[in-house]
Amino acid sequence: MVGDPSSLPKSWNEAPEAVVSRLPQYVRALGRLLEGGTEVISSQQLGERTQITPAQIRSDLHHFDRFGKTSRGYNVKHLLERLKLILGLNTNWNMALLGVGRLGQAILGYPGFTSEGFHLVAAFDDNPTVVGLQVEGITVRPIEELDQVVREQNINIAILAVPREHAEEVIDRLIECGVRAILNYAPIMPKAQQGMKIANIDPVLALQSMTYYLTVRNIQ
Amino acid sequence: MVGDPSSLPKSWNEAPEAVVSRLPQYVRALGRLLEGGTEVISSQQLGERTQITPAQIRSDLHHFDRFGKTSRGYNVKHLLERLKLILGLNTNWNMALLGVGRLGQAILGYPGFTSEGFHLVAAFDDNPTVVGLQVEGITVRPIEELDQVVREQNINIAILAVPREHAEEVIDRLIECGVRAILNYAPIMPKAQQGMKIANIDPVLALQSMTYYLTVRNIQ
Repeated sequence: MVGDPSSLPKSWNEAPEAVVSRLPQYVRALGRLLEGGTEVISSQQLGERTQITPAQIRSDLHHFDRFGKTSRGYNVKHLLERLKLILGLNTNWNMALLGVGRLGQAILGYPGFTSEGFHLVAAFDDNPTVVGLQVEGITVRPIEELDQVVREQNINIAILAVPREHAEEVIDRLIECGVRAILNYAPIMPKAQQGMKIANIDPVLALQSMTYYLTVRNIQ
Repeated sequence: MVGDPSSLPKSWNEAPEAVVSRLPQYVRALGRLLEGGTEVISSQQLGERTQITPAQIRSDLHHFDRFGKTSRGYNVKHLLERLKLILGLNTNWNMALLGVGRLGQAILGYPGFTSEGFHLVAAFDDNPTVVGLQVEGITVRPIEELDQVVREQNINIAILAVPREHAEEVIDRLIECGVRAILNYAPIMPKAQQGMKIANIDPVLALQSMTYYLTVRNIQ
């Protein structure tokens, strides 16, 4: 599943994390524009659709290479294809779910992953009342089988939905099995570890910037 | 619950959205530093803890006012207090949950809200098999009671965990009831509407920036 990094321009791997985190937003907006028949877009127009300033957009894209920008703007199809290549979105990714409680079950039923190339192919729990159950077409396995399944199913990404007190232990186990990317729903901020990426789903951070608008601004 | 905007410096309400979205990360890092006994911190050190560049941090804070910065750095306690004031985090916020399926039930059990001043005080569903149930100490009410409960309980924030096909309709209903901030877990990107803020919990965006590191970079 993992592309051959040596075939990609070297400068691509030097983009700051904040830049990389904005690229998926461009991909989403450009995908919609393409569907709607838009062929060319200015950074100003892309900014209106993503709520990111045009200057930031130009600066972000500058980390990679020329994207067929003309005086009229970017070619939507070309820019979208390049960004997808940079982000590794031209391939399918197999994912494992760790923790099949209420949250894990909701994640197994989340309808947004497959269409974007992300496939939940395995689920694990250590609760004997859950192991063996079929949830959304996936049989819950005991966590002892993690290593084997990760290898057999070529799993690169894990989604973590275990209780807080088990999160660190399960992360260590995932790393041992060679999983290098974790989407973490547990209410902890795990320490970054060399050789891997953790993205935290953190509803409190989202709430805390909304209260700014409720407090300081009169939203009208 | 909502502070009096007229008592706050006028420049505070002019910060760009991207700046506001980073402030909660500073609040979290500073809270930890204060607990650990750190009194002064440089933008460099804060950058290491937040993975945001020192230049970005200085620029973000510049949107507000002087934060007691000296040649040694920022006073942690003072900066934390000012940021909390800006973000409206010195008060408690009452929230309602809309949709008490598996995801909604998991959200009701999420342990991270209360300690941060966010209180889930009501839950709504239109499914008669769920209405009336007690989940995590909260009685699920029929959605017809939304308007009344929002007024009585002074609810400013809603968490949306309904299926995709009902999301837009429930958002409209929330707006009618005067709710101005919505944390959206449904797999849609609702159109921004005047007078309100929607923050989307979007696992696919998070996955799409992790695949960058799996593809382009050799994580080591």
